[in-house]
Formats: sequence, C-alpha cells, structure tokens
Amino acid sequence: MSSTSSSMWGGRFSEATDQFVAEFTASVQFDQRMYRQDIRGSIAHATMLARVGVLSTEDRDLIVDGLGQILAEIEAGQFEWRVDLEDVHMNIEHRLTERIGIAGKRLHTGRSRNDQVATDIRLYLRDEIDAIRAELKRLLTGLIDLAEREADTIMPGFTHLQTAQPVTFGHHLLAWFENLKRDDERLTDLRRRVNRMPLGSAALAGTTYPIDRRITAELLGFEAISENSLDAVSDRDFAIEFTAAASLIMMHLSRFSEELVLWASAQFQFVDLPDRFCTGSSIMPQKKNPDVPELVRGKSGRVFGHLMALLTLMKGQPLAYNKDNQEDKEPLFDAVDTVRGSLRAFADMVPALQPRRDVMREAARRGFATATDLADYLVKRGMPFRDAHEVVGKAVGYGVQSGKDLADMSLAELQQFSDVIADDVFAVLTLEGSVNARDHIGGTAPAQVRAAVLRARDRIA
Amino acid sequence: MSSTSSSMWGGRFSEATDQFVAEFTASVQFDQRMYRQDIRGSIAHATMLARVGVLSTEDRDLIVDGLGQILAEIEAGQFEWRVDLEDVHMNIEHRLTERIGIAGKRLHTGRSRNDQVATDIRLYLRDEIDAIRAELKRLLTGLIDLAEREADTIMPGFTHLQTAQPVTFGHHLLAWFENLKRDDERLTDLRRRVNRMPLGSAALAGTTYPIDRRITAELLGFEAISENSLDAVSDRDFAIEFTAAASLIMMHLSRFSEELVLWASAQFQFVDLPDRFCTGSSIMPQKKNPDVPELVRGKSGRVFGHLMALLTLMKGQPLAYNKDNQEDKEPLFDAVDTVRGSLRAFADMVPALQPRRDVMREAARRGFATATDLADYLVKRGMPFRDAHEVVGKAVGYGVQSGKDLADMSLAELQQFSDVIADDVFAVLTLEGSVNARDHIGGTAPAQVRAAVLRARDRIA
Amino acid sequence: MSSTSSSMWGGRFSEATDQFVAEFTASVQFDQRMYRQDIRGSIAHATMLARVGVLSTEDRDLIVDGLGQILAEIEAGQFEWRVDLEDVHMNIEHRLTERIGIAGKRLHTGRSRNDQVATDIRLYLRDEIDAIRAELKRLLTGLIDLAEREADTIMPGFTHLQTAQPVTFGHHLLAWFENLKRDDERLTDLRRRVNRMPLGSAALAGTTYPIDRRITAELLGFEAISENSLDAVSDRDFAIEFTAAASLIMMHLSRFSEELVLWASAQFQFVDLPDRFCTGSSIMPQKKNPDVPELVRGKSGRVFGHLMALLTLMKGQPLAYNKDNQEDKEPLFDAVDTVRGSLRAFADMVPALQPRRDVMREAARRGFATATDLADYLVKRGMPFRDAHEVVGKAVGYGVQSGKDLADMSLAELQQFSDVIADDVFAVLTLEGSVNARDHIGGTAPAQVRAAVLRARDRIA
Amino acid sequence: MSSTSSSMWGGRFSEATDQFVAEFTASVQFDQRMYRQDIRGSIAHATMLARVGVLSTEDRDLIVDGLGQILAEIEAGQFEWRVDLEDVHMNIEHRLTERIGIAGKRLHTGRSRNDQVATDIRLYLRDEIDAIRAELKRLLTGLIDLAEREADTIMPGFTHLQTAQPVTFGHHLLAWFENLKRDDERLTDLRRRVNRMPLGSAALAGTTYPIDRRITAELLGFEAISENSLDAVSDRDFAIEFTAAASLIMMHLSRFSEELVLWASAQFQFVDLPDRFCTGSSIMPQKKNPDVPELVRGKSGRVFGHLMALLTLMKGQPLAYNKDNQEDKEPLFDAVDTVRGSLRAFADMVPALQPRRDVMREAARRGFATATDLADYLVKRGMPFRDAHEVVGKAVGYGVQSGKDLADMSLAELQQFSDVIADDVFAVLTLEGSVNARDHIGGTAPAQVRAAVLRARDRIA
Repeated sequence: MSSTSSSMWGGRFSEATDQFVAEFTASVQFDQRMYRQDIRGSIAHATMLARVGVLSTEDRDLIVDGLGQILAEIEAGQFEWRVDLEDVHMNIEHRLTERIGIAGKRLHTGRSRNDQVATDIRLYLRDEIDAIRAELKRLLTGLIDLAEREADTIMPGFTHLQTAQPVTFGHHLLAWFENLKRDDERLTDLRRRVNRMPLGSAALAGTTYPIDRRITAELLGFEAISENSLDAVSDRDFAIEFTAAASLIMMHLSRFSEELVLWASAQFQFVDLPDRFCTGSSIMPQKKNPDVPELVRGKSGRVFGHLMALLTLMKGQPLAYNKDNQEDKEPLFDAVDTVRGSLRAFADMVPALQPRRDVMREAARRGFATATDLADYLVKRGMPFRDAHEVVGKAVGYGVQSGKDLADMSLAELQQFSDVIADDVFAVLTLEGSVNARDHIGGTAPAQVRAAVLRARDRIA
Repeated sequence: MSSTSSSMWGGRFSEATDQFVAEFTASVQFDQRMYRQDIRGSIAHATMLARVGVLSTEDRDLIVDGLGQILAEIEAGQFEWRVDLEDVHMNIEHRLTERIGIAGKRLHTGRSRNDQVATDIRLYLRDEIDAIRAELKRLLTGLIDLAEREADTIMPGFTHLQTAQPVTFGHHLLAWFENLKRDDERLTDLRRRVNRMPLGSAALAGTTYPIDRRITAELLGFEAISENSLDAVSDRDFAIEFTAAASLIMMHLSRFSEELVLWASAQFQFVDLPDRFCTGSSIMPQKKNPDVPELVRGKSGRVFGHLMALLTLMKGQPLAYNKDNQEDKEPLFDAVDTVRGSLRAFADMVPALQPRRDVMREAARRGFATATDLADYLVKRGMPFRDAHEVVGKAVGYGVQSGKDLADMSLAELQQFSDVIADDVFAVLTLEGSVNARDHIGGTAPAQVRAAVLRARDRIA
Repeated sequence: MSSTSSSMWGGRFSEATDQFVAEFTASVQFDQRMYRQDIRGSIAHATMLARVGVLSTEDRDLIVDGLGQILAEIEAGQFEWRVDLEDVHMNIEHRLTERIGIAGKRLHTGRSRNDQVATDIRLYLRDEIDAIRAELKRLLTGLIDLAEREADTIMPGFTHLQTAQPVTFGHHLLAWFENLKRDDERLTDLRRRVNRMPLGSAALAGTTYPIDRRITAELLGFEAISENSLDAVSDRDFAIEFTAAASLIMMHLSRFSEELVLWASAQFQFVDLPDRFCTGSSIMPQKKNPDVPELVRGKSGRVFGHLMALLTLMKGQPLAYNKDNQEDKEPLFDAVDTVRGSLRAFADMVPALQPRRDVMREAARRGFATATDLADYLVKRGMPFRDAHEVVGKAVGYGVQSGKDLADMSLAELQQFSDVIADDVFAVLTLEGSVNARDHIGGTAPAQVRAAVLRARDRIA
Repeated sequence: MSSTSSSMWGGRFSEATDQFVAEFTASVQFDQRMYRQDIRGSIAHATMLARVGVLSTEDRDLIVDGLGQILAEIEAGQFEWRVDLEDVHMNIEHRLTERIGIAGKRLHTGRSRNDQVATDIRLYLRDEIDAIRAELKRLLTGLIDLAEREADTIMPGFTHLQTAQPVTFGHHLLAWFENLKRDDERLTDLRRRVNRMPLGSAALAGTTYPIDRRITAELLGFEAISENSLDAVSDRDFAIEFTAAASLIMMHLSRFSEELVLWASAQFQFVDLPDRFCTGSSIMPQKKNPDVPELVRGKSGRVFGHLMALLTLMKGQPLAYNKDNQEDKEPLFDAVDTVRGSLRAFADMVPALQPRRDVMREAARRGFATATDLADYLVKRGMPFRDAHEVVGKAVGYGVQSGKDLADMSLAELQQFSDVIADDVFAVLTLEGSVNARDHIGGTAPAQVRAAVLRARDRIA
C-alpha cells in the first residue's frame, strides 16, 4: 500500500496493497473526466457545512480557494493524476491537503466517496444530456429545413425494400424527424430522474452531522433530493435509462444510415454525399465511401453493448454500494461520446445532402407504385376492397409479363381486368395524383408535409 | 398458396407459397393474443368509415355485429385459428366475411395490415402497462406497510457485503420502494408514447379515402395521432422503451431477490420465507428452497435478452415496414408476462416476509459497525476527519487482534488511540445511538423512516 | 401444495404451495419437449442400477417396460401433463408409479433431478445439433452447386456498398460457403463438450450407492463423464456455447439475407426469388415481398437475445444448482428452433435463386470497377503503387465529370494522366481480364472458383 | 483533407475531408496497439513480393530495415501518431516513405488495407490468446494445488444457497478447475480459426500480382490460408468467437467471485482474503472490502456487452468490407485486456486464500446436511427412495421444531419416524461418513478428490 492510500483508509490494514491490484482496481484513469463536477460538488458541500456550522468560514474559504486553484491546474494540464490515489476524488482531496493543510482534511466530513461519486456522475450526465440535446436540436432543424425544401419531391416509398407507393422526399425526411423527436422527449423525461441529489447519503445510512441537504441541492441545481440513503448510493438506474435512450438514438441513426448508404450506391443514386463526409480507398482509386453513415451504423452495436453491460453489472447485487458499481463509468462515458459525436456528424451532414430528384422520380414511376391507387379507384366505384385488390393483382401480373407499368397500359388493356375502369383512371395513376390524394394528418401529400413542417418548428421551439 | 391467401393478396402470384415457408412466416400462433385489440380497432375503423361516408351504416352495423360475434366465439374457445391465414388480422377478417359476406370485404378499406398491427400492439401494450402498474402498486404498498412496521428494527447495513453501519430494516425496505417507484414513473412517462395512434397511416403513405383520424383516436382512447405515416408503420420504439423499463424492473427485483436468497440462508437467517413460497428437493428431504426469488433473479436475463433482441431487430432497417418487424411481438409479449408475473409473486410474498429481529440485531452488533460513529465523535471534538479515520482504523486493528468490538473495549483501551475519547463515547457506540444520529432526509433514523413512510403513501396515492 | 408434490418432497413442509407460485415455478409447460431424452436416461439409469445390484432385475424390467409404455402414451398424445407435478421428470416418474407401483418409487435411487435435468438437456441438444448440421450440410451443398454453375458469372464486388472490383457470382456464393463452413466446425467442436455425462452427480456431491457411471455413459452414447459433481449439476456452458454458435449462424444468415433483399429490389434486380418464397400485401396488389430473408434477418436478434439471457442468467450464481438455472431451457429451445428453421428455409431457397446475369454484368461494367486494374497496370510498368493510385484517381475524377467509364475513354484521354499507358491497357480494363487476373488461392478468377468448388466438396464430405 | 490523406487516396476527391469527420472516422487512436503485428505483416509481405519477383531485393532490404527502425522508434515512444493519417497502417507506411523514399511507396503492392487490417488483428489476437492461456494455466495450477491441500476439509455444499450435503473444499475448488479447463479447451479450438491468413485477399477479390500466399503464411506462422477473398476481408467471426469464449471466462470468474464475496462476509467467514487484495473505505475505518472479486464480477457485464456489440455490428452487413467493421477493435481489445487482467488477479489471489476450516466444518454440521444420507440408509434397508424421502422429511420437520440436527437426536427420537433405523445410523450421519460415502468418479470423497487432482495435473500438462 502506498503511504498515501494508507493515510486515506489504511489504519486497520497490516499489508500493502498488491501493486497490480492497485492498478486493477483504480478508476482515476477514466473518472478524472469528472473533475469539474467533483470540484463543483466539493465547493457546494463545504459551503453547506459552513452554513450549518460544521466547518468554520476560514476553513471553507481555504477549501473553496484551494479547489479553484486545483481546477485551474487541471485545465492547464499541470495536475499530476496518481493511480495510487485511486480515483478523481482522492486525487483532488490529496492535492487540496497538500496546498491548504489541515483544512483540506476537514472537507470529507459528513460525506463518503459513495455519495460523492454518485453526485459527480449525475452532474456530469446532466451536463452531457444538455449538450446532446443541443446537437439533436441542430439535427432536427436540419431535417425540417430539408423537408420543407423537398416537400414536392417524389420518390418511391418502400416496404420490404420493394416499391410500394410514391411518397414525397420531404415526407420521408419528416419520418426521421419523428424518430429523433421522440428521443428528445425521452431525454427530457429521464433528465428529471438524473437530476436528483444523492449527496448527504454518506456511505449508505446518512450522516451524524447536522447537514442541510436543501442547501447543497440548491447550490448544485438539483431538482430533487434522494429520499433514501441506501438507494442513493447504490442506484445506477439513471445511467441505464440514459444508455437505453442512447441506444434508441443510435438505432434511429443506424436506420437513417442504412438509407444513406443505399441511396449513395450506384444502384439507387438517390442522394449525393459531399466529398467531405466520405473517404477513399488505399487501393481502389475510384472509391468514394459513405464512411460517416457506415460508421454510425456500426457504432449502434457499441451503445447496445454498453446497455447490456450496465444491466448485467447491476443484476443480482445486494444493497448497498459494491465495488462492481465502479464499472458503471466507462460504458456510460463511451455511450455519451458516441451519441454526441454521431449526432454532431449527422447534424453537419444532413443539410448538405444533395437529392437527385430526377433519379428518385424515375424510380417511383416504375414498379407499379400506383397499384393501390387503382384499387382505391375501383372501391370508389363500388367494388369491395378485397375484390379490387384481386383485380389489380391480375393487372400487375399482366404488367410483369408484358413489361408495362399500369400507367403505360391502354384503357382497353386495363378494362380486361374490370369494366368499371374508365378514362378518368389515368389521373389516379400519375405520381402527383397519388401523393396528393393522401391528404390527411400524417399523409404524404405535399400540403400535409408543409403543414407538418410548421408544426415541427413549433414542437422544437 | 392456399386458396385463402390467394384471396387476400395472391392476384399477381403464379405459384403457391411453399408449405414450410407459410408456417415459417406466419404469426397467428402468437399474435392471436391481440384479438380483443384487433376487434376493438376494427370496430372503431368501421365506425369512422361510416361517419365520413365511406361505408354505409348497414355495412357498418353488419361489421360491428359480426365482430362482436367473433369475439364471443374466440372467448368461448370456438374459433379455429388457421396458419394459412397468416395472422390474427386475416383470420378475423376472413371469418367476418364468412359470416356477413360482402360487407366484410369492405372493412379493409383505407387501412393496411401495417397500420392495423401497429395499432393492435399499442392498444395491447397500453392495457398491459395498466395491469403491470396495478401489481406494482400492490407491491409498493406492501413495502410501505412492512417498512412502517419495521421502522425501529436494527440490522447491519452492508457495503461490499461487509458490515458497514447499522441501519433500520424499515429504511432498507424503503430503498426497494424507491427503486420500484422510479419504475412506476418510467411506465407513466412511456405510456404517453405508447398511446399514439398509427391507424390511418395505411401501408406507409396514408390513404386516398377521406378518413378522419380524430374520430378513431377518440373511439380508441388514444391521446395523440401519429404525425407521419412512414414513421407510424415502421416505429417500434414503444416496444423497446417498454422492454427497457421492464429490464429495469427485473433488475431491481433480481437485486431484491439476491437479498432474500442471502437472508434465507443458514448463514444470514435474517428473514423466514413462508413455506408456500418455497419448494423442496426430490432427493434432499431437509431442503426448503427460496424458489420464487431465485427464479425471478434468473428471469431478469430473459427480459434483458428481449431488449437486445428488439434493438438488434430494428438496427439498420430502412423505412418503412419490413417483415423483420413481425419479430417484435414474441419478445414484447414475454417481457410483459415475465414482469407481470414477477411483480405479482413479489406483491404476494413481501407482506408475508418474517424478519428475525434478534438475528439481525446481533449481526449489527458485530463487525465494528459503529466505527464511523467513533470517527465522527472525534471530529466533533476538533480532529480533522482524515485523522479521526486513521485513529479509528488503528482501534479496529486492535479489535480484530483482540477479538473485541469497539463497544466492548474499556475506556482505557480506547484512549490508547486518542486521549480525546471520554466516557461519553459509549453512547455513540450503541446501535440506537448510531441510527438515531442519522436524522436528516434520507437518513436511517427511525423518525426519518416514519416520515418517509408518510411521504411514500402520498406519492403512490 | 398438491398431495402429489407433497409425496415428492413435502415431508418437512407445513403449508401448501401457493397456487400462483406453483404455476410460476413449474417448468413442465416447456421441459416436456425433452420427454424422449428423459425416458432414455431413466432406462439407462435403471439398467445400470440393476447391473451393480442396487435394483433387482424384476424392478428393472418393470421400470423399462413402464417407461416404454409412457413413451407410447406421450407420442400418441394421451399423456396428461400436470403443472402440479412441476416438471417432465416428476410427471413421468409419477405416471410410472401409477402404472407399476412400488418399483417406480425405486427409480430415483442414486440420482437427483439436478443431474437428471442436466443429462436430459445434453441429450436433447446433442440430437438437435445433429439435425442442425444436416440442414447446414444441405445448404452448403446448395451453395457449392450454385457456385459451380455461376463460376463465370460476373457481378460487381462491393465494399461500402460502392462498386469496388468485378467478381464472379460463384466466388461470392463461396464466401457464404466459408461463413457457414466455419459454423459447422464450431458445432463439431462444441458437440464434444455437450456430449459429457453429468448423470451420477446426484444433487451436487455424488451418491452413496455403488453406481458405475461408465455403464450409463456407454448406454447413452456419451463420450466422456463429468469429472466433478458440483460442476456437473451447475454447468450450463454447453447451452451458452451452443447459443453463441447459433448467434454466429444467424448473423451469417442475416448478412446473406440483407444481400438477397437488396438483390431482389427494383434498384438491384440481381436475383429473382421464386414466388413460393415470397408473400404479398393486403393492400398493395403489386407487392411481392422477400419475406423469408427479411424474417431470418429479423430472427438474428432473437438468438442474440437468448445468448445475452443465458449469460446474464449464470452471472454471479454461487455453486451449485440454483433455481435460476431452470431459465436455461426456453432460450435454448427457441435458439434451436430458430436456427433449424432458418437453415431449412435457406437450404430450400438457395438452389432456387435465379440470378439475372445480364443485369449483374451491366452493373459491373459501370462504376470504374477496373480502376485498380489500371493502377496495377501502371505498377507493372515501374510506377510505385502509391503514385499509380494517384494517377488513376485523377482519371476517375475526369470520368465522373465527363460521364465516361475508364474502358470508354480513348487512349489519348487516358494518356493525359500518364504517358506510360499504351494500347494494351484495354485488355486489363475488361471485366474478364479483371477477374481472370486474380488467379491465386482465394482469388475471384473462374479457374480459382472451380478449384475452390472441388475443395469445398471434399471438405464437407 | 490533409495533403497526406490526399496522397493516399485523394486523387478523385474535389474537397477536403471535414475536420470533425477526419477525427470521427480515424482509428489510429486505438489501432496503434497493433503496430508490432502491422510491421511483422509488412515485412513478411515485402519478403514474399521479393521472392516472387514483384519487388527488387534492394527495395525489400530498404523496406525491412526501415520497418525495423520504425518499430524501434515506436517502442522508444518517439513515433508521432497522426490522426490525419487515419490508422496504424498509413501512419507506418507514411513514415516508411519519409525514411526510405520511393521504395516505401512500393510496399502496398498487391495488398489493401482490408486484408492488412484483418491480418493484423488475427496476429494480435493469436498473441493475446497465448498470453491469456498462460494466465489461465497459472490459475488452474493454483486451484489444483489448493484442492490437494484441502482434499479433506469439509464444508457445506449448497444448492439454492441452502445447506444441501457436506462436501470437501478440495472438491469445490476442482469444480472451478473444470469450469476454467473448458475455457482453455475453447481457446484452443478457436485459436485454429483465428490462425488463418487473409493476406493476399487485397481489397476484396484478390490481386493481379503473382503472389504466393504460402510464403507469407509460413513467415507469419499461420496454420491455414483463407479460401475466399470476399470472406477474408469481411469476416469477423474470430473476434466474436473469442469474445464469446471470453464472456464464458468472465461468467465463471463472476460466479467464483460471488462465492469469495459471500465467504469473506461476516455471515459466512469461510475464507480470509489477504489484505493486499482488499481495499478500505474513505469513511468507515473498519472496512476491508473484497474489491478484486467484486470488480471482476462487475467486469463480466463489460465483456458480455462487447459480445453484443460485435454481433450487432456484423448483423445485416452485405459483403464485403464496410466501414462498420472498424468498430470491431475497441470491444475486442477491451475484452482481451479485461480477461487477461481478471485472470491475472485471480491467479495471484487463489494461492493466497486462507480457508477457515473450523468455521466451514461447523457450518456443515448444521442444516440437516446428512438428511440424504439418512434416506439412503433407509433405502439400503429396503425402503423405496420416495418413501425414505418422506420419512426423513418428517424427521427434519421435527428437528426444525425441536432445534436439533439429525445427528443430535437420540435413537428413540429417530425411530419415531421409522423402526428400520438402528444404532448403526449414527455412522452415516457424521460428516466424514457422508463425504467418504460418495466415492465414485466425480464424487466428493477425499479419495476421489486426490484422484481428480492427479488427473487434473495431467490434463494441463
């Protein structure tokens, strides 16, 4: 055991910590990223202790000043992080005592690392959620703007990756808006559960000092105070709930990515990605690869994995804090980084997408995309839907054989399948006729897309 | 292809479906469980179609009556589910047409199985969430009642499964209340996102009929209408979000189970589980095994697995509906059943737990559980916390050697480690002294537990 | 507690099992599927007990006959499975005692349900692995046959879904052969670890009867006998290892499925899927959807989820058997069914794939697929590869601008970028030139594909 | 785009890579760890190219020397890794060209980063598997030694964490040997699949140069050459299979850890962990926490998560290489580090475990651990097992009421339950009688443990 650890908790120990064990169990390599939150929390704690009379104002001032200087040291890259001091908390406290002496040893009164680390993570995650929501908003705005511009652009709508019905590209983009808007709602909901303060729970049972938790909560901007100390030090729900929400974000981006990769292929050619979002090949000189969507699609697995890691981590643990919990940080941090980076890349890329309207339109023209319109036409002339479906199915079968799309058949050809069909059928078989006819909330008609764009702007305002 | 499938979608097909493929791709084996929701949705759809003039009132009445009779048939176990009819939707629609003829063929006007199934699942899940919340409330109430009864019962609080500080059993039980209360909050939040109506999105682009989605939404009790048809038919976020919340519930129950298994062991003996919640061994006649908590702990994996299944399922799918999505149901259904059953078992079992107060108290008396109290005592006499920690560490080291707990040492023995210690030290070293001293919101003092019980009753009212 | 359970293990119990608990903890609903293995194991056990003198030959004969009759009852659908008898083991043993009286009560001598169930699952899984390997072999054979037929068919090879270099379709199909061949190797490896006999471990410590485990192992076809009884009753590695191998199979099929879905799209049109492997739409009469590959792609998530379920299940369990382990069966059974069904569907479908050779070839002709060939041409004339890459990159840039592929440029145009280029360049820019040039083990040249086909036949013989 | 990337693949690009995109898509931050393998692979590639005449011997010598110097630079910490050079491959190649000029530009002839990275990972993983197996062997040896020493030590065997039957501690330790021995078998099996060479597959289709893959395979120690180039560059099965095996290792260690945490608790006290493997608390001076097993138990989730990440990553990817694949490295690297570190910690700790034999024995004496022995005693006197079970169950019920264990009852008391019981019963109710009686392969008798120890030494020799 290093002399330092000894001074932290070594009184009852008769043997030094094994060197490899010290490294294996240390967390400072990754938890140092929470130094701002740790210092902010310590300042609030000292302020509260002084307010209730547990700490003298002199000691408080020494502590607050000392922590401010340590913050500056860290940000200047001049702080030496020591693995033998285990974690961010002990590193900072040890340095504080070096700087200000005995007052530094009083800081840890009425708290424990158990409630301290829980407080730090929540503060950290709260900050990151706000940053993520800012990127998300940028992306949502980009989608709305592009959807508005492309409200009239016609493309094939797919189900089963088979041409289904014509839709507008603006409508398609707003589907992504809806996906990501739900993500924003989830982040808003879970932020409330992140923003509860464990500080004051001490090791597991609360503390014997006359602390006032409302003071620290107010100083740190927490919306609520944890109701039970055993729960407060052992709960990692917030990390799991965030990572589940992050998994949904990544899942959405992976689906969007899949479409971008398809659209950028030589077979689809629906969209051009600017060169600056692509990379090349070390061997094939012609390649221009859609790296960003591919990588984001791949990164979804990473966040799903972190979710699994965190659920497994907590499974079966008895109360209260166990060392296992130290493993909460790396998955959470990486989920935060991955989501934030992926959203940033998409928020940058979406406004730069260049749809190839002619290619999309041409693709929509093929594949019997207006077959449903023909069935609806027959229904409106009195045929039950199931029968109309059968009639059109036969017409399509004929089209496949003869190589003609529905709009390319003559009236006589169409009438082979039903004599209800008249000359006015060709209006419903056009692409514009088809999309304009779907004119209700949620439908693909350009008018509906424009209305949805207006509502969307309001919803993210 | 069976003649029946043929009548549903076979017009363009020149070859029958392979027999094995028909079974492999059918879903009626598991989606029939949504028959109530499917019928409820169809009745609302027909009602709306009649209201806007797409369906005659005669047809509507025939449909509504026919569906009512089919519901009765199903509930009486007289309905023949056919795999060749693929799914719950086609089975019911086909039977409807058998019963009422051509009017039955008009029901599928202005909708598709894509929006129909999405509507059914949401209605189903909404019902199940309400049932789950009812079990959850029963369990929360059981915890509160037991916590109130055991507000003064002292047990050892553990961290790292090592004796840490004395806590009250009531306080410990309220930690589980907090865990499960968060689950209830999450279910409330996500229910809003479940309760949005996809119906009217048709296959993917909306429909050409003059539907009024507000009518169907109102008839079905939906709080909102989906804003985008492409999203509405392809979105399965609600299933994932529910399964993530279900995973957290199971994780909490697995932790609680771990404690029950420990507490029921010969080594702990903190709690007796009534025989009716245990089973025996086919070979060892003395065994009484805590099957319910063990099984629930094991079932956590199952729900985590379903969450992973659903995330993987959706990863990388382009819009809109793909057949992959059919795989959403079994994991969701099993997650629902597992959570509901596990909560039910716990809600039944918790009120029957029999704590062995004497054993708990005796366990708390050992293990230097009041060492922190001694350190706090020194701090209150002016010693910095870090120095006090060191002093007590040495006293504990002495205790381990000499086989004496702190409260068993003489004043002279204690004064070896610090002359600050005086005769009043023994008051802080008692179990009651220790728990009563943690007297702030979230602390383990019996007075705080009673206050927390009162707040808890309010919070679930 | 039912009187029956009582007779199994109830001696020390003073209270009947709660009704819901009885259902919640029973496994007969799903473990009855192992009835054949259970009976086979019991017959071997009784035979061994008689051989070592623990059971009389009369009792053995009664037991063996009785079990044979029960097997017939079950297969005739005349066996009544009772939830109050908990599991497949007690259901069969109870029926045996009904039929043959006191001799039936002697069967459970020297074993426990703990080693019995572990034996049953291993026998079951061994049988299923053999069935899965048979389907796999059928699929591997289909791939080889198709690859041989399409050894000369040229298609674009993709990286990043961008045209990379021309490859042969036969070569592409053999990539899937390699994937699935590895799966077969893994199944072979893990089958050895499945095929070890736990029987004789009894509850956890072995038994006091003079059993001879070699006899039972031989009778049941086990290759080895478990070395440690505590391990034998608690080990579920084999289920996890199988499910991991199953996950890889499903991952491979999901990738293959993705390609089939792409290839069947209007944008690719590389392959036609016969109607019998597709289904239609209830609303869009023109649709022919590649349901089988989509569903298999979706089913990958299900098996990954089961793997996570099983890992989570076992995590943190102390030795030996715990009730949690009962949760091993449903994930394992479903993984077995899913893999077996998916392989069957693919083994049926692959031989029926209809490649559209003209479309593939035309796609390979575009997209500068022979750019690497041009770079290699320059290298062979002395230019360092990195410089050649740069030269060709510029030629491609010119081609993108001017809308000309490399083979469409005149010699003069090509010489703009390097005067090393001579008239013989056009030979390397042809599709045949390109694929034939990759003529080494593992390369795409038709000659290599044919050689690989021959080796592949050997490897699965 | 940096001028450097430009020189690698930028010929056709008209716009620089976005700065954030460059960082987001770079891998050098984590793939630099494979520098040794990358250099080893390049040396072998250059050697082969010279052997077949594609490279001059002068160029080869320059390359080999240059790479040797770069290796030295890296190991001396003097190499500047540049994110704008994307990955480990380009960083090293670029530096090579800086050092040796035009010869450096010839190195990338006949290969691509696609086969290069696949080769590097396999070489890296092969090295790590060997290192992991060395730690595993150390741990296995530690278990054997301890088992031998504790072959006669009696402890309670548990099922459902309830006292089941007496076992020997040596037997219990050998259960862990069996678990970990299977892990070693799996690593051996999968190493064969790792040790196949993709080099020579180039980008996806092979290369036009007259390479001889057998030469490179031999130089690099590969056992086999990949049979299909498309498969070789896109296959990541080996990473998944390794991570699945790693998950099983971690699962085993998590179970072992759970036991150590239990055994180190005040309630069990079966084992003392030396101070050097424990840490203390910042607030509770008496705490000595079993950090190493807790942390290892927690780390199991991390590796399960990586397995999930990798499976998700590959799911649904069409052939051949896609950028997604870059995401294979971090999960794999972290799985390697976690398993290696956890095994090392256990291999260090296991030999230092201090069993408290008296406490274990005393625990085994309670809890009716010999109830099965009593049932077997009755069976040997002619009673069917099921009836004997019932009789003993009643005796246990009496014991629970009267607070007496079976061995503490008088003969008269025992005879209340069956008059078959005679004075010789007390021999079978002793702990030694119980364990010695389980004297067959796999049983807990000390003689069997000693025999198993001998076999175990052979098996790992």
